[in-house]
Amino acid sequence: MLSFESDYTEGAHPAILEKFIETNMDQQSGYGVDVYSESARKKIAKACGKEDADIYFITGGTQTNQLVIDTMLKPYEGVVAAVTGHVAAHEAGAIEYTGHKVLTVPQYLGKLKASDVKELVDTFYNDANHEHMVFPGMVYISHPTEYGTLYTKEELKEISDVCHAYNLPLFLDGARLGYGLMSYDTDVTLEDIAELTDVFYIGGTKVGALCGEAVVFTKNNTPAHFVNLIKKHGALLAKGRLNGVQFDVLFTDDLYFKISRHAIDMAEKLKTIFKEKGYEFYIDSPTNQQFFIIDNKKLEELEKHVRYGFWEKYDDTHTVVRFATSWATTEESIEKLKELL
Amino acid sequence: MLSFESDYTEGAHPAILEKFIETNMDQQSGYGVDVYSESARKKIAKACGKEDADIYFITGGTQTNQLVIDTMLKPYEGVVAAVTGHVAAHEAGAIEYTGHKVLTVPQYLGKLKASDVKELVDTFYNDANHEHMVFPGMVYISHPTEYGTLYTKEELKEISDVCHAYNLPLFLDGARLGYGLMSYDTDVTLEDIAELTDVFYIGGTKVGALCGEAVVFTKNNTPAHFVNLIKKHGALLAKGRLNGVQFDVLFTDDLYFKISRHAIDMAEKLKTIFKEKGYEFYIDSPTNQQFFIIDNKKLEELEKHVRYGFWEKYDDTHTVVRFATSWATTEESIEKLKELL
Amino acid sequence: MLSFESDYTEGAHPAILEKFIETNMDQQSGYGVDVYSESARKKIAKACGKEDADIYFITGGTQTNQLVIDTMLKPYEGVVAAVTGHVAAHEAGAIEYTGHKVLTVPQYLGKLKASDVKELVDTFYNDANHEHMVFPGMVYISHPTEYGTLYTKEELKEISDVCHAYNLPLFLDGARLGYGLMSYDTDVTLEDIAELTDVFYIGGTKVGALCGEAVVFTKNNTPAHFVNLIKKHGALLAKGRLNGVQFDVLFTDDLYFKISRHAIDMAEKLKTIFKEKGYEFYIDSPTNQQFFIIDNKKLEELEKHVRYGFWEKYDDTHTVVRFATSWATTEESIEKLKELL
Amino acid sequence: MLSFESDYTEGAHPAILEKFIETNMDQQSGYGVDVYSESARKKIAKACGKEDADIYFITGGTQTNQLVIDTMLKPYEGVVAAVTGHVAAHEAGAIEYTGHKVLTVPQYLGKLKASDVKELVDTFYNDANHEHMVFPGMVYISHPTEYGTLYTKEELKEISDVCHAYNLPLFLDGARLGYGLMSYDTDVTLEDIAELTDVFYIGGTKVGALCGEAVVFTKNNTPAHFVNLIKKHGALLAKGRLNGVQFDVLFTDDLYFKISRHAIDMAEKLKTIFKEKGYEFYIDSPTNQQFFIIDNKKLEELEKHVRYGFWEKYDDTHTVVRFATSWATTEESIEKLKELL
Repeated sequence: MLSFESDYTEGAHPAILEKFIETNMDQQSGYGVDVYSESARKKIAKACGKEDADIYFITGGTQTNQLVIDTMLKPYEGVVAAVTGHVAAHEAGAIEYTGHKVLTVPQYLGKLKASDVKELVDTFYNDANHEHMVFPGMVYISHPTEYGTLYTKEELKEISDVCHAYNLPLFLDGARLGYGLMSYDTDVTLEDIAELTDVFYIGGTKVGALCGEAVVFTKNNTPAHFVNLIKKHGALLAKGRLNGVQFDVLFTDDLYFKISRHAIDMAEKLKTIFKEKGYEFYIDSPTNQQFFIIDNKKLEELEKHVRYGFWEKYDDTHTVVRFATSWATTEESIEKLKELL
Repeated sequence: MLSFESDYTEGAHPAILEKFIETNMDQQSGYGVDVYSESARKKIAKACGKEDADIYFITGGTQTNQLVIDTMLKPYEGVVAAVTGHVAAHEAGAIEYTGHKVLTVPQYLGKLKASDVKELVDTFYNDANHEHMVFPGMVYISHPTEYGTLYTKEELKEISDVCHAYNLPLFLDGARLGYGLMSYDTDVTLEDIAELTDVFYIGGTKVGALCGEAVVFTKNNTPAHFVNLIKKHGALLAKGRLNGVQFDVLFTDDLYFKISRHAIDMAEKLKTIFKEKGYEFYIDSPTNQQFFIIDNKKLEELEKHVRYGFWEKYDDTHTVVRFATSWATTEESIEKLKELL
Repeated sequence: MLSFESDYTEGAHPAILEKFIETNMDQQSGYGVDVYSESARKKIAKACGKEDADIYFITGGTQTNQLVIDTMLKPYEGVVAAVTGHVAAHEAGAIEYTGHKVLTVPQYLGKLKASDVKELVDTFYNDANHEHMVFPGMVYISHPTEYGTLYTKEELKEISDVCHAYNLPLFLDGARLGYGLMSYDTDVTLEDIAELTDVFYIGGTKVGALCGEAVVFTKNNTPAHFVNLIKKHGALLAKGRLNGVQFDVLFTDDLYFKISRHAIDMAEKLKTIFKEKGYEFYIDSPTNQQFFIIDNKKLEELEKHVRYGFWEKYDDTHTVVRFATSWATTEESIEKLKELL
Repeated sequence: MLSFESDYTEGAHPAILEKFIETNMDQQSGYGVDVYSESARKKIAKACGKEDADIYFITGGTQTNQLVIDTMLKPYEGVVAAVTGHVAAHEAGAIEYTGHKVLTVPQYLGKLKASDVKELVDTFYNDANHEHMVFPGMVYISHPTEYGTLYTKEELKEISDVCHAYNLPLFLDGARLGYGLMSYDTDVTLEDIAELTDVFYIGGTKVGALCGEAVVFTKNNTPAHFVNLIKKHGALLAKGRLNGVQFDVLFTDDLYFKISRHAIDMAEKLKTIFKEKGYEFYIDSPTNQQFFIIDNKKLEELEKHVRYGFWEKYDDTHTVVRFATSWATTEESIEKLKELL
């Protein structure tokens, strides 16, 4: 059975497992002060072009979004996101659990627009009753988005400019950041992101790690006593080495970028195959998630041999499905898929 | 440099790492429905003597305590714990973060007494104003306790009886459960715990895993939509296999118990050495954590060669320190420590 | 200076103040068990046609919405509301503060549609990933709405039917309920509301009281230990008589309905005047709030003599404004307004 | 039936009701910007000797404690209180509901000691693991305390000094402040309190008002967007005049102080009677709450004629009871009580 169900179906990149074995019996202190975490932090800071970036490793994506948003917002503030943003729709209310509202703006292929953010903020401050409403307190974007789409550098810059004009921190969710940075069709670099955002995270779980996201505070703006707040959120690992070792490996010899590029190469092959076979694209995604509109009968046949992600009903006879590649996708599986189609 | 600083200074038991490698490229669905998690659940249920136990894997201890307490309590309830209980003192307010108060009873070498719980509950219901106070809603104990001490089966039964007489779920924090069960000096089995408690967890992080705690609901009493609540708390791993594989290995061929027994064997050797050398015991602990009262000058000398846990100031010239053994402690390190002392 | 700024610009109906004086030195127990609260409860239950209705007095509207929604929802649930619903837009995040999301459906002159609620719920349960999303847990409507509009009995019945088909409690915010019930253009009675909803409140603050809202649980469905939860929310008055006396007066000899009808009579006169003077109506509201589109120059002139509520910018040269009547509006002030226009 | 059950059994001081009538039809804007609130603020600031004090009116005591503590604490902080402090024991978990822990120190007749606060803070910062614990973030005291006792000016100064040495705001709960200030046995003035604390409140509910507490921020330290936070807590009254009028009256011509003194005069008479009749005092309280140890048989007889507050069981044959006087206690009722005893 082939699977393109998601980008988290396999374990970890083999180099990570090797490093686990190599370092296993080293005795290290807990809670993130081990040498591997320390080394990983330095490598990531360097890759970001920000030697003074402040970096923390958190285990999962929802937890990271919940933690960063809760600790960056003031009590009277909410977070602005696209209506399709992960924090707006698919986090089981994890943001609201922290007492903060998600304020939504329209989405365009999963992206939000700087002008819409500006309008939301202007409307808010022009409302005579705005003290009775939730203050816009930060802006959340993901890159790639839920639809696999990417912001251009110019778009990021516009959003960043609006944010900073209104003193709103810009938070970029990079759960699939590697696949965004290594797209054939992007002008955005890791340095750009470190420059244009106030805090972002580099996803590990979906890019070669068993778990782990690296949160990067780029502007000497880490919330006070952040380790305490991580603990209060239930998110502090005793064995910080678990995340530390993984990110140390991923940021050694550009492994993170190389394996991300591999996923993109596989995705482009997959796109070519679907195109050649005459399938209709739901969105033209430049990253590792590809969305197709498939006839339900065909799909019935297909799902005997391949697992994919159900996305949404398209019409009574068609369905939108997602095929995801990853660092672990093999050329062989792409070939097999080609035969199947 | 020797280290007896804690029981989470090394990585994972080698058998776990081997299994990671062996299973690495299997494609599995996320969020805990992978075959390894499923297998681990069955093995743990069997070890508990409760085929219908409902089991979930959570990444860390604070998170588990926070999640179980929040989801088992009703909104008008708090959790009863010993004044030294981990949730009362060392969780950075993670319980209160969920909106629930920790109600404390006295501690006796880290343990609470059934009679004190009964008195707290009776006093509460006898108070004419109790609708203005926090209802006692569950009882939290840890086994071993913060001081490495253990409840006897009789004590557990008494606590369980009081809890059930008052309809209070009993929650047992087993962050170091293996070391409790394998103590030379206990009559409590895993089956007993499954029988006498309403929910408990089997600690992985401190007993051979890189991370992970297995929460066991023993009475068909899992909170409704628990997976949603795990997600809402930010505690749902995308790659559920990370915890699943680890617990599957730990509960294969009694590995969990064997490595716990090793730690106990090492702790007993360590106790013998300290006793022979004339050190004063702060507490007579039957598990893997040992507490000594050491002269500060001696300590200054010692800490050049060995790392230990600072516990608390004893008097102006002495300190209470903790030495912990674990599944990873070697005979060799015990011998070296003997020479040092 | 005339004022039609809102329906809470004056104090209380004189009969309430008289009763305060009359009852002032009676010694009564606190926290809502005084004889006035008890009497008010019985009168309200009778007016609702539900002798077994369970009734609590809360001081303000936001507090009531926050309390009812938080205590009726389960932890994995959110509340469904129109996108313009008060809890969605104008409560400073008070709902999210309790950890619950507001799930929005479209609005039609401030009202939501049963079919949209049904679609939201169906879509939710059809989503394979719905365990990762917020469950729809209750439906919130207000009557009158933010725009002064009213549901017909048929519409209420449809909403109620959808709610009960999906086991969702229906909550009706009646901050201005009197003005809704006494509209010339409604077929909905208090008994209907008690029958069709699961919980609702009768607004006092905006209908003749100094403060106070009467929450009515209609289906023997009061959350357990509700008084404790009121206290936990900081909403339990020591002198429960403050609300009790007010509602006892309002529900004696139909005072609540009579003064509401007066406000409607005044609103209808006001509408006639604006119509005669050729003003454009923004919405054709059948209750005490009237919305007009006024030329900004005219408005500049007007605001020298009369206070009104700013609603929103209409276009570059026009503004939407709100004129509200209340139990306290005098014929004389209507006449003066006529002269001014 | 006589009642000394509590100090909130009657309505409001008649002068307040008269003012309600006098001002009733004045049209005022809502949410605390009415002329009465404004006037009350000025009078209170003047009485405090702090013209720049920032003052807000909140409806009840629990709400005020919850709001002030939540908004003054940082997310990693808890509030320090005596183990018998109202926020520690009798608020139904309202503080924990906001996500903050109450850290307790010993009580001495209801009071806490500066030295205990200092020790708690020192112990905290000396603990190597304090980042895993709740930071002490403010100190809560009440004056009078739960037991009717009072701090001396020297004691207040010591507490204030420790607080400021450690940068902890000092919060004084003055639910019964008038009775404390007018005690025969105090050297503490309202100006002292304004000087020595960072925030405190002047209780209205128990001192002549129907409801209302005046929160005074004394050091230009009001939390940002405090009105929004009041609303988010569900604590913002639409008709702010309700509290405004009451405090305006109470702070006109020293009414607040005069009626408080009356309660103290009555309490002293009551003490004399009990002393003469040979009753045992549980505590020697200098304020309006008096605590006696009474034989249960005697009590049985007594409660046929007089209502009192049950405090706690003393031993198998005696009970501690509370008799409270207030602004509303008459000489006549004291005389009747004398006859009864």
